Amino acid sequence: MYPIKFENLILAFQKLPGVGRKTAERYAYETLNWNKNKQEEFIQAIEVLKEGIERCETCGNLCEGRICTICEDKNRDTSLLCVVQSPKDIEVIESIQEYNGLYHVLNGLINTSKGIMPEDIRIEELIKRIESNQVDEVILALDPTLEGETTSMYIEKLVGEKAKVTRLAYGIPMGGHLDYTDTLTLLKAFQGRK
Amino acid sequence: MYPIKFENLILAFQKLPGVGRKTAERYAYETLNWNKNKQEEFIQAIEVLKEGIERCETCGNLCEGRICTICEDKNRDTSLLCVVQSPKDIEVIESIQEYNGLYHVLNGLINTSKGIMPEDIRIEELIKRIESNQVDEVILALDPTLEGETTSMYIEKLVGEKAKVTRLAYGIPMGGHLDYTDTLTLLKAFQGRK
Repeated sequence: MYPIKFENLILAFQKLPGVGRKTAERYAYETLNWNKNKQEEFIQAIEVLKEGIERCETCGNLCEGRICTICEDKNRDTSLLCVVQSPKDIEVIESIQEYNGLYHVLNGLINTSKGIMPEDIRIEELIKRIESNQVDEVILALDPTLEGETTSMYIEKLVGEKAKVTRLAYGIPMGGHLDYTDTLTLLKAFQGRK
Repeated sequence: MYPIKFENLILAFQKLPGVGRKTAERYAYETLNWNKNKQEEFIQAIEVLKEGIERCETCGNLCEGRICTICEDKNRDTSLLCVVQSPKDIEVIESIQEYNGLYHVLNGLINTSKGIMPEDIRIEELIKRIESNQVDEVILALDPTLEGETTSMYIEKLVGEKAKVTRLAYGIPMGGHLDYTDTLTLLKAFQGRK
């Protein structure tokens, strides 16, 4: 039996995705043995969760201030809109330096079994953006999973008449996750979009 | 490029043992998406590192207050002293319910290449304990690694004349770590100590 405070520390680490008891214990002992400075830095960085990290009012990307650097960039092609699930997908797509349009972060995918309905993700904002801006092409870059397909089909139906809708080519393995795709595969997927 | 606060969150998670960039990003996104309550609980548990977790004044185990529950337990055989590297080893040994003596936590192992010398770990406290108490047997339960062997040999030399010194039997695979040993192997190692 560990002291309650240490047990709580272990349980906290166990909340992280994919972290079991053994790993959580390891994290707890490791952080406990750090020097004061390293512990202080760690705590400060984590405490940022309290205030939260700002989201871009336009696209939903993580940002500092109100509008993200991509939406503010005048050199971007505003007629292209790439729809992604999460800000981390923007990072991956940016890294291949192939796409020069704007993004729209849905913040999730439709998942009826988990009760995540179309109105729970940022689809309404997407429609408004398309209606009030000149968007020629909407690129759906969602995970090729059941939820991703459902969401893509849902958006396609809503947007199909307002703009051309394309999807990334299937170079991405089915059931995989976008942010674990290597950049060459992603590049091919981007070029072969249909 | 992530906003600086989010980047710091990722870098903080990357400090954890065995956590690379991808995993740290995953932790950062996951914690960011938690609800306020879960985030608050997580932060509170981590903040315990600021005040620190008490160590038993006698054996060095994690504890609440000044003396740990094992040292306080009147049913324990005080003539047996088991020397371990870290409090987590006490947890593993306690779980096999074979040993009923006391413990002594060294808080590290001698590692000359990393500059960890005998005076940096709790060997002096061990000697004092043996000199001022009736200890018949000192059981060295250190990792069967180079550092563990060095430390065991060092302690054996110092303590050999004052008490019988035994070691766990080699059922534990060489180069392994004590806290990843299954309980049956550990039980055998305990019974066959020599």
